[in-house]
Amino acid sequence: MIRVGVNGYGTIGKRIADAVLLQDDMRLEGVAKRRPDYEAFVAKQAGIPLYAIDEESYRNMKDSGLEPKGTLSELLDKVDIIVDSTPAGVGASFKEKYAAKRVKSVFQGGEAPDVAEVSFSTLCNYSDAFMKNSARVVSCNTTGILRIACSLHNEFRIKRVNAFIVRRGADPKEYKKGPINSVIISPPDAASHHGKDAKSVLHDVDFHTKAVVVPTNNMHVHFIEVKFGEKISREKVLEVLLRAPRILLIDAKRTGIVSTSQVIEYFRDLGRKRADVPELVVWENTIHVDGDILSLVQAVHQESIVVPENIDAIRALTGTSSDATDTLRRTDDKLGLMKRIE
Amino acid sequence: MIRVGVNGYGTIGKRIADAVLLQDDMRLEGVAKRRPDYEAFVAKQAGIPLYAIDEESYRNMKDSGLEPKGTLSELLDKVDIIVDSTPAGVGASFKEKYAAKRVKSVFQGGEAPDVAEVSFSTLCNYSDAFMKNSARVVSCNTTGILRIACSLHNEFRIKRVNAFIVRRGADPKEYKKGPINSVIISPPDAASHHGKDAKSVLHDVDFHTKAVVVPTNNMHVHFIEVKFGEKISREKVLEVLLRAPRILLIDAKRTGIVSTSQVIEYFRDLGRKRADVPELVVWENTIHVDGDILSLVQAVHQESIVVPENIDAIRALTGTSSDATDTLRRTDDKLGLMKRIE
Repeated sequence: MIRVGVNGYGTIGKRIADAVLLQDDMRLEGVAKRRPDYEAFVAKQAGIPLYAIDEESYRNMKDSGLEPKGTLSELLDKVDIIVDSTPAGVGASFKEKYAAKRVKSVFQGGEAPDVAEVSFSTLCNYSDAFMKNSARVVSCNTTGILRIACSLHNEFRIKRVNAFIVRRGADPKEYKKGPINSVIISPPDAASHHGKDAKSVLHDVDFHTKAVVVPTNNMHVHFIEVKFGEKISREKVLEVLLRAPRILLIDAKRTGIVSTSQVIEYFRDLGRKRADVPELVVWENTIHVDGDILSLVQAVHQESIVVPENIDAIRALTGTSSDATDTLRRTDDKLGLMKRIE
Repeated sequence: MIRVGVNGYGTIGKRIADAVLLQDDMRLEGVAKRRPDYEAFVAKQAGIPLYAIDEESYRNMKDSGLEPKGTLSELLDKVDIIVDSTPAGVGASFKEKYAAKRVKSVFQGGEAPDVAEVSFSTLCNYSDAFMKNSARVVSCNTTGILRIACSLHNEFRIKRVNAFIVRRGADPKEYKKGPINSVIISPPDAASHHGKDAKSVLHDVDFHTKAVVVPTNNMHVHFIEVKFGEKISREKVLEVLLRAPRILLIDAKRTGIVSTSQVIEYFRDLGRKRADVPELVVWENTIHVDGDILSLVQAVHQESIVVPENIDAIRALTGTSSDATDTLRRTDDKLGLMKRIE
């Protein structure tokens, strides 16, 4: 049984905690959090052992009627591995603390690459993280790009991936972040960090990514263009994507699903907790092939897509699954991932 | 066992179907639907008997790989009562069909009041619907206004309710409806139908409602002002609201919940199906009393607030619960309604 702790109980942390609870080779020892807000009450109501991130936070939690079990230091004494899901850039400040306690650590893509020994995405480089002390799961957009790239690269040779990224402006729970009536070129030259990040995981493919931000909060959308080393066919691509794990193919004509809103609504209706979509969503109607060029449109659920990769990273670092196939099967079964709507 | 059918499997219908499945005195015989879209696949995946609304719809469903059990006429032969949740204004066109089959019927607030024998809201006029043939559950905003009005009116005498309504522009699944960057005065003189609708249920109180529509999709928000027949105190109001069913009091300072987004996020985290909030949400920090005037701010989850009242209407028309207290307890227990976050 892998003893797991989660530091940071926000958008990503609460989902990872829930996913750990579903695995039969892991035990969630507790979650640590700074603020005594409604998300802390969620942990309390779910019966998840709640720890305060420091002494001040501990006192604030007590004052709010929460019942913290102790502080982060005490949680670290109980675990083999900690998943850091503190806000972007904050994770690095805990790095030494985790190392001093000899606890293995998984960081999120909001941290700089040098926070961990390896940047990680299951389908691409599981073995690079095997038995290491730390790994950084790449961000949601990069995870989406690498899912499609490595699914194809594992079957064909691909040379180059262009991704034009339409980013959501904020998460559903946010109420102060925008844009609310603007499209932002971000960064100013549009050349986003995702390309460099993807290449740091899949070295022999060129990635070129550009991004804008729009006023939505449910999913990112990518226009993807892949250049292969040879001519390919649409049928062969479809066959590979139907076999690839963690990719959900949607037929817009058959289901009427032509928007990110409807993707989320479908999973609300199925009763998925939080209406999460850890699958990469690919609209099969958008798959076009012209010689050695493939293009398609895909959507990334920013809140949950990295959750399966975090679970795999725990198995890689602790040496619990010796290969990606094994952990993919275990993780995806427990999370109930789907291939198609029928 | 009350044999229930649901006609219309969209935003409201799918929720009522799920709520019927949870009751131990009701059996869901099936749902009828026109289009073979993703919501039809949801019914199929959930194992809910799916009926087509007519012959053409039946053929289209067959062609899409759905397995309709028959048409609406056949569903009507199997039920004691039908809940109509077809689009606003469409329900009336089925009225004769239901009557011809001698099936009792519950309509939604989008229909004109004369569609049914009585306009209905549990806390206000349960007994008016007892053993009748048809009832119309008032709309989401009117239900929210009547929950607060009747909770107070059942304890004190109230004279007048002003509601300034900030309506959401669309539902989460919608992708073509707005506004997206405007506040609409709706109707043009802002005097909305909700006041008249509320008075048709609670006759001895005056209701004055005005409405605007804003670019959000999660909840309506109401500024409420209530004039009492005597001086009151904040403490007494708080005590009554804490006892009243179907009202959730939120302490913004303690929980950090200051927005509709966070209300929804909290219920996503708790694992409520679709993150629904059938409770009327009242921010206790906004409750102010000045002599005989009470003011507060409340939020209404447009997709789910009428679900409990629909379940009660089924019990009223079929004579299954002889009083409101009994059905309130049964419905709210099964739906897991909450009073406070702790």
